[in-house]
This record gives sequence, C-alpha cells and structure tokens, in this order.
Amino acid sequence: MPQLRLALAQVNACVGDLAGNAELVVRWTRKAVEAGAHLAVFPEMVLTGYPVEDLALRESFAQASKEALDGLAARLAEEGCGDIAVFVGYLDRDAGGVRNAAAVLHGGQVVARQFKHHLPNYGVFDERRYFASGDSLDVVRVHGVEVGMVICEDLWQDGGPIAALGEAGVDLVVSPNASPYERKKDDARLALVTRRAAEAKAPLAYVNLIGGQDELVFDGDSMVVTADGALVTRAPQFVEHLVVLDLDLPGGAARAEGVVGEFTVHRRTLSERPLPRYEPLPVPQPAEPLPDEAEVWYALVTGLRDYVHKNGFRSVVLGLSGGIDSAVVAALAVDALGADAVHGVSMPSNYSSEHSKSDAADLAQRTGLHYSVQPIADMVGVFVDQLGLTGLAEENVQARCRGVTLMGLSNQHGHLVLATGNKTELAVGYSTIYGDAVGGFAPIKDVLKTLVWDLARWRNAEAEKLGELPPIPENSITKPPSAELRPGQVDTDSLPDYELLDSVLDDYVEGDKGYRDLIAMGFTHELVDKVLRMVDRAEYKRRQYPPGTKITFKAFGRDRRLPITSGWREG
Amino acid sequence: MPQLRLALAQVNACVGDLAGNAELVVRWTRKAVEAGAHLAVFPEMVLTGYPVEDLALRESFAQASKEALDGLAARLAEEGCGDIAVFVGYLDRDAGGVRNAAAVLHGGQVVARQFKHHLPNYGVFDERRYFASGDSLDVVRVHGVEVGMVICEDLWQDGGPIAALGEAGVDLVVSPNASPYERKKDDARLALVTRRAAEAKAPLAYVNLIGGQDELVFDGDSMVVTADGALVTRAPQFVEHLVVLDLDLPGGAARAEGVVGEFTVHRRTLSERPLPRYEPLPVPQPAEPLPDEAEVWYALVTGLRDYVHKNGFRSVVLGLSGGIDSAVVAALAVDALGADAVHGVSMPSNYSSEHSKSDAADLAQRTGLHYSVQPIADMVGVFVDQLGLTGLAEENVQARCRGVTLMGLSNQHGHLVLATGNKTELAVGYSTIYGDAVGGFAPIKDVLKTLVWDLARWRNAEAEKLGELPPIPENSITKPPSAELRPGQVDTDSLPDYELLDSVLDDYVEGDKGYRDLIAMGFTHELVDKVLRMVDRAEYKRRQYPPGTKITFKAFGRDRRLPITSGWREG
Repeated sequence: MPQLRLALAQVNACVGDLAGNAELVVRWTRKAVEAGAHLAVFPEMVLTGYPVEDLALRESFAQASKEALDGLAARLAEEGCGDIAVFVGYLDRDAGGVRNAAAVLHGGQVVARQFKHHLPNYGVFDERRYFASGDSLDVVRVHGVEVGMVICEDLWQDGGPIAALGEAGVDLVVSPNASPYERKKDDARLALVTRRAAEAKAPLAYVNLIGGQDELVFDGDSMVVTADGALVTRAPQFVEHLVVLDLDLPGGAARAEGVVGEFTVHRRTLSERPLPRYEPLPVPQPAEPLPDEAEVWYALVTGLRDYVHKNGFRSVVLGLSGGIDSAVVAALAVDALGADAVHGVSMPSNYSSEHSKSDAADLAQRTGLHYSVQPIADMVGVFVDQLGLTGLAEENVQARCRGVTLMGLSNQHGHLVLATGNKTELAVGYSTIYGDAVGGFAPIKDVLKTLVWDLARWRNAEAEKLGELPPIPENSITKPPSAELRPGQVDTDSLPDYELLDSVLDDYVEGDKGYRDLIAMGFTHELVDKVLRMVDRAEYKRRQYPPGTKITFKAFGRDRRLPITSGWREG
Repeated sequence: MPQLRLALAQVNACVGDLAGNAELVVRWTRKAVEAGAHLAVFPEMVLTGYPVEDLALRESFAQASKEALDGLAARLAEEGCGDIAVFVGYLDRDAGGVRNAAAVLHGGQVVARQFKHHLPNYGVFDERRYFASGDSLDVVRVHGVEVGMVICEDLWQDGGPIAALGEAGVDLVVSPNASPYERKKDDARLALVTRRAAEAKAPLAYVNLIGGQDELVFDGDSMVVTADGALVTRAPQFVEHLVVLDLDLPGGAARAEGVVGEFTVHRRTLSERPLPRYEPLPVPQPAEPLPDEAEVWYALVTGLRDYVHKNGFRSVVLGLSGGIDSAVVAALAVDALGADAVHGVSMPSNYSSEHSKSDAADLAQRTGLHYSVQPIADMVGVFVDQLGLTGLAEENVQARCRGVTLMGLSNQHGHLVLATGNKTELAVGYSTIYGDAVGGFAPIKDVLKTLVWDLARWRNAEAEKLGELPPIPENSITKPPSAELRPGQVDTDSLPDYELLDSVLDDYVEGDKGYRDLIAMGFTHELVDKVLRMVDRAEYKRRQYPPGTKITFKAFGRDRRLPITSGWREG
C-alpha cells in the first residue's frame, strides 16, 4: 500500500490580510516540510480569511487574491517547499462569477483548482450573495495516491462532490473548512466526517480554521477518519496546531475522468509512483473534545483576544460594578490578554452599595488588573439638574455618564472599551443604549445570564484545581443582581427569575417556538406575554449593540435579522 | 374586445402588522368597488409588509399570515367586495418551504395562489435565505379575460414566468411589487415593464408599495403599459393612490394548461363571459416622475415619517448646530411631521461661534419648530477635569455630552432623537460614536454632503416658488462647515474638499472601483490614499450608526456587509 505523510495546518487567518495570511501559509508549510510531510492542507479561504463578506464583490480584491496565490506558489518553491503538495483556500473570480476556491500548489505553480459547489445561505452564511457554484473536481495524484478535495459545505450536503468522488475513485479526500464554533453541536462533525469517508470510500482529512473573526470564532477540531469509520487523530480546539501523520492508502482507486453525475472530474499527476516504504511516525493521540463550560470559556477568550489584537489594540478598559457580568468579562480579558493589558474602572454613583465597590476592588486584586475609581456623582448631577431629569431618564443618565467616562479613557489612553452586557439583558432590552451598551466589543453578548454564573463557578473551580486564587469574588456570584440605578433596586423588580427567563428565551429565540408552543410547554401566559413583549420591543437596542463572540447559532447579531419597525406580536 | 376595469392599489403596509394590513386591503378594495372595478391588485406581500426578514423563519408567523389571508377573503365578501377579484401578496409555508406568495381572493375564498420563482439575493435582498422558489402559475379568467401574474423579481429576470405566460397565453398580466426607491434608476422600471409586456404579448399592470420600512423606502410609481409598449397611465410617487382605468383586452388568448417550459400552468375560471359593453372612464393622466432633488426630498420625508410613526413615536428632538446638516434634517422633520412635533436644541460649548447660535435660532423661527438652548460647558467641564482629557478625547466628550443631553430629553419627554450626520462624514468616520451619532434614526445618513447642500437650495427655492419663507438660513448654506470642537476648526483641516471627497466616495463605494481604477480616473495618489484609508477604517462606526433612509443602492447599512476586522487595504 502506498504511504503518504499528511500535515493538517489548523491556523488562524485574518480577513483581508493577504500578505499576512500568505506568510502564515509559508511558515506552517515549512513546519510541515521539516516534519517530512508530502501533502499539507490549510483551511477554507485561508489566504483571504473567512468570511470576507462584501469584499468578495470588489474586483480589485479578487484580483489581489489570485495574484497572492500565484505569488505564494512561487514563494513556497523559493523557500524549499516546492515538493510538497499544498492545498490552499482562496477567492477566485472568472467569467462565471466570484468563487470560493481551493488550489493545489506544487513546484512553484498552481497545479489544480476547485470551486465550492454547495453554497450555504442560512444562519451566519450568505454565500449565495457572493459566490457562483462550481461543478468540476480536480483530483491530484501524489506519490501514487489519488487525492480529491471537498470544500466545507460540500461535506454537509447529501449528494454532491463526495458522492461523485466516491464514484470516480479516490484514495484520500482532504477537506478545507471554515466552520464556526457552535455550542452543543453534539459532535456532529465527527459523525458527518465518518459518514462522508464511507461514501467516498477513502480516508477523509478535515481541516478547520481557528480564531476569532468579528462575531465568529472557529474552533479547529481538525481530524482524520478512515473509510471504515475509525477516528485516527484529532487536533485540540482553539489553538493553532499542525497534525502530522502517516497513512497507508490503497492506491488502487478507479481513475474515472470526465462527467460523473453533475460534475466534471479532472486528474492531474504530480508524482505517479508510490514512495519506497518508510517507517511511519507514531500516530498522534486524538485530543478529547472539551467539556461544555471549558469549550465556551475558550471560545470567548479566543474571540476576545483576536478581536482586540486583529483590530490593532493592545489593551482594554471596562467598568467594574462588583456584579457578576463585569467580573466574568474581566476574568475573560485577563485570560485573553494578560492582566497588564486590562484596565478596570469602578464608577460608583450615589446609589452604589458598599459591596459594589469592595467586590470590584477584590476582583482587581485577585486578577491583578489595573484598577481605578471614578465617581460619577458630579457628572450626573449637572445633567439631572440642568435638564430636570426624573425617573427612567435619571436612571439612564447614570449609565450614560459611565459610558462617556469609559470612552474618554479609551480616547485618552488608546484602550478598547469592553461592554459587559449578557445575552439575557440584551434579549429583553434591560440595558441602556449609549450607557452600559457602550463599547467596541461585548464578550458575553451571546451568553445567557444563568450560563454567566456557571462560567464563573467553572473558572473559579479550575483555578482551585491548579492551586491558583479563583479570579471571581464569591460575593459577586452569590449576591442578587442589581443595576443599582435607584435605591434598593434589584433585577427581579423588572425581570422574571433568571432561570425561568433564560428557559423561555432559549425556546423562543434559539428554538423558534411560537406563543402557543411555549404555553403548551408549560410556561404561564403571564410569563410568556411578558418575555415575548420585551424581546419583540428590544430589536433596536440589539442592533446598536457592539459585536461579541457567537457561541450559539441564533445569537443576537447579524445572523438574526429582524425588522426594527414591526407590528407583529406573538400570541 | 372584452373590457375590464382595473384598480391598482398603491398602498403603505407595515411589516408584521397582519391585522392592520388586512384592514388596509379592505379599505382600498372598498374604494375599488365603489369605482366599479372588476379586479384590484395590491403590492407584493402587502399582508405581511416587506421585507419580513427572519420573521419568515418563524412558523407561527407564516401560520398567522395564512390565517389572515383566509380571514381577509371572508371579510371582503362580508363587506360586499366578494365579486371583485383581489390580488393580495402574503407569506405562505407548505411542505416545500416558506414562500413569497400572491393569492387571488374572490367570493369569500382564496381561488388561486402563486409562489415567486426568481428570488433576489443581492443588495438589500436576501430572499434565498428565506424562500423556496415556486414553479407553478395560476391564471384566472375574469369576465372572459385570462389574467396571469408575476411577482416582482420574476419581472426583472430574463426567461421565467413572463416567457411562460407569453407562451401559454394570457390577455393581461398583473405584477405585485415591493421595489425600493433607488436614486437615478434612469426610469429602468418603465423600460422593463414595456419589454415584459411585449414578451407576454399582453398589457402589464405594475403595482408597487409606497412608504418607509426601516432603511428602505418604496416610491410606488405603479403603471400600466400595453403589449405594444404604450404607457397608459402612471401613479404619482410616495403617496398612497388608487389607479382606476378601463382596458379593452383581446380576450382571445390561447389557453394552454399543464407544463410550459419549467412551469406548470393552472387555469381557474372566476367568470367565463365578457361583460356587456360599457362606457369606459376617462384614462387618468400619467403622473410625471419627479425631478432628482424633489424625488430625494420626498424619499427622505417619507422614510422619516414612517420610521417615526410606525415605531409609535409622535415627536422628534435633534441638536441644532447652525450648520447645514442639522438645518436640512430639521426642515425634513418639519415637512414629515409638522413643526409642532419637532424639538430643536442648541447646545453651545465654549468653542461655539456666535453664528452657530444665531443661525440655529433663525432656522427655528423660519420653520416654527420648538426651540431651546442647553449649554454644555458645565457637563464637559466635569468630565475633562476629573478624567484629565486632552486633544481628541476632549473634542469627543463635547459631542458625547450633547448625545447624553438629547437622550435625556428623549427619555424625559418621549421624543425620538434624530442623528444629523451625512453619508460623507459616515463614510470617512468623521463623527463621534456615542456623540453626534446618537439617535434612533439618521435621516441623511445616505446623503453625500454635496447633495445636502443641493437639497437645501432646492427646498428653499421651492418655498420661494410658493411664496413661503425658505426654511433654511442662507448663512447655514454658505458658511464653511465646522464641527466647532476646538477653536477655529473647519472640516477641511481633516478632510479633502467636499466636491473631490464626494466624487471619490461615489466611485469607491457606489461604483466599487479599486485603487488603480481611481488613479486611472485622474484622482491623485495622495487623495485616493487618504480617502480609502479613512473609509476602510470607519467600518465599525458605520455599523454602530442608527438606520436612515436608503436613497442609493450601496448605502452604508445592512446592504453593505463588510468585516470590521480586516487586513485589506486597497493600493
């Protein structure tokens, strides 16, 4: 049986940074060559980053992508990486339209290229807005092994390229992906890859991006599965990683060319004969998928770190209220950026409790972040007196003076402001626009309040396991939450109990259940009425909220597109 | 030749308001019946409003739409409108998916229904995200006339339903549309309708929505064109209107049924025999399309009025700086809502010039809006002193204290805040986030600065024509623009001359030209470098900006989707 050494390069690309991404490919290909690999596979559209959104429509960008690809092929050869076959995703544009494409680079040339066939157009994906579908398949022969490729969604849809490759005959399938992390996918990827490997009658090497890109975060989880469904190895999540492994491949696949079903199959030979038999490397141990809270925590840390760094910031500033939300955001920021890059500001008002100040100070001490205190009483006083504000208008002006304070510090010192609102608040509009919603990034925007508490407990327990000081003050976890915008206020004055609220939100938002369904599930009319009314009214605020890392599919963000102006009411 | 009296109901629906939209259909059908019409046509998805965005994915909403349609059919019969054939757009959902649909209501029943075939998925449209395509055509026979229908995009794409109807044989085509206003379309609609009427070999009655829906504004412009290309009549833009006219129709069309090309044609007979000959009404004079500035002005007025009213507000508040932008927004608001619903606030700082105050007061007097003065020196002083702000941080805090002031007044008195930024500022990021960008709606968000001046001159000239006082002070039009955030500041300190800047922006943003194209067009390297760098960096601010009426296709808004995090630089 022919042998082949594969390198799966699970890397972190940045959208639009063609030069930087090309450099990334060179760097990781060099590692693959040093490890003796014969074939290296990079994620979907690694050269442009993913998703490029409307940059795809710009002719100059597509042209630059194609030039960068040619340049990369030449550069790899110059760097002594001309013998390895390198699979690189990029953006193409031809007479048929703009293409989500992958190419094989070898010997200084682009020797094969294939366009994605199935274009996802749901959830976070808008590919039919951008791309024209491809229907030809380029199979390359590497050291006697017929290697086919399928790009991301082409793996998820029944029929299509995988079935055609299975029929035409391949010895190995490689699949470049840009598949965002999504909570509780129940290991759908492993099941899928296993099924497709069987359909292709060949082992399948799945390679995914890692890293944050605006609201998306990619978790990696690259893997190799054999034709008979055995998991060979699997990369750890949320880190750049090179999987190197040897495969024994049949090498005797049929070699049909031309029209197969709705596709046209081309064959390109890079090297006809199998390699002389060599001693394989030990197979790397498959990484275990992370448990739920850990997975979410690393998704949030990764999304935050990349948003800050890829946008050219070095430090962040956030308000510390002593409450659970700002404590969790601060702990995430310290894990993502280091304590020295995190600036916490306590901004007490006349209504702030003693514990709100002491809990904030305790958090600062535990995490080592930079801590300062800026009372807002004087600012608030001028607005309230001059404008004659009362009630809700007076409550909001407090939140807005905090927003102006944080933005002032941001402009003066160059920190990015983090907004600390959670998904529950955002869903029901329990938030002040231009107040606590101020910020460039909202790390827990997509985390329901009950999960915020779970994450805090998990992070503290992790610290204890490692013999470290838990970052989050116990009192911030256990005390009843309050916005402290008037004396004695607690969240449950305005909101249902968070356990109940979060379960209605989960069913209404993520589950797309209607009023009648919710009642049938056993929620009371009063609760459902109240929650749905709040959610339906909060759309404008949600649209004005800064981006945050998406961990569930129907997060509030660009993937959930609702009219602001709407007369629709459930029930 | 059989005769038929058509009523084209150019109406203003609200997304999601099924009960209100059904009421609208009843009200206008009654008018059609009173006018003796035999057939009434309403716009695309009139029952749900357009676009419903992710409401389409909610099963309970589709169910409610279908129930509302059945209810409407019954209601029309009860109201004595059972004899007229009423074409009503709605949202359907069947085993094949969610549908953009239109039905014919007659005799208390839904007697025919058709699903849109071509689903636009570009620009402001995302229909492939929501809808499954239909491939059957329901032709109804009304008083001996075979009437086919095509929904919106099915008119714009070559081939498809129109060609099939032409082949199968119809005497009349009606087309329900939701076609947003777009500046300088060069009367593309008339040319299109003329071409399609020829292909269908039958007169074509085109009916469009009017009114604002979030960022979109529909202009109506409903029309009827004969098979040989003569424009019979045309409705005025931006107003609800019922076109009633009599047509002599051949009535001898072929009546093929079953498979025609990729479609299946069904025939339904509502009334077999032609009507006895009657005296036709005089043909209504075709409305002239509005000249450019007038068209833009009415688009902005319509978008603003509907955003305010459909969201349940009765009044607006805005900052009056004495400059051209706030003067034009104030004049738009007075035209849209009446002077009594408009509250202008002058918020001078220590750097504000005398004329900024006197020009604001002059504007207030000319338009009759409510005027007040709130100096911001005290608020700004507290922030600057306590936080030690200097330079840009100090400049921004002024804009933000104005934002907090307007929001305070909004919360206290219930006004919607209008943001006064124009498209040029927004494009290059010459705006303070949480400062002058504060507001619920930004009326001139999509108007380049040079067009803001043109609109001001046009509006004043219109007033003079009518013998009224021009609303905008001459000095606001002629003085050099300044943000007045530091002593002696003028816009040209930071920005290129507006004429030049706007022409680069028009080519870069609307024209999708690249760096090399712009240089080839004769702009200097220095200018192109500067403008493109500013535009590419401003994406985050644009995404945080409130919605505003779209007048050009590639406005900054949800239709232009760019990554915030991006390493791409033109040039």
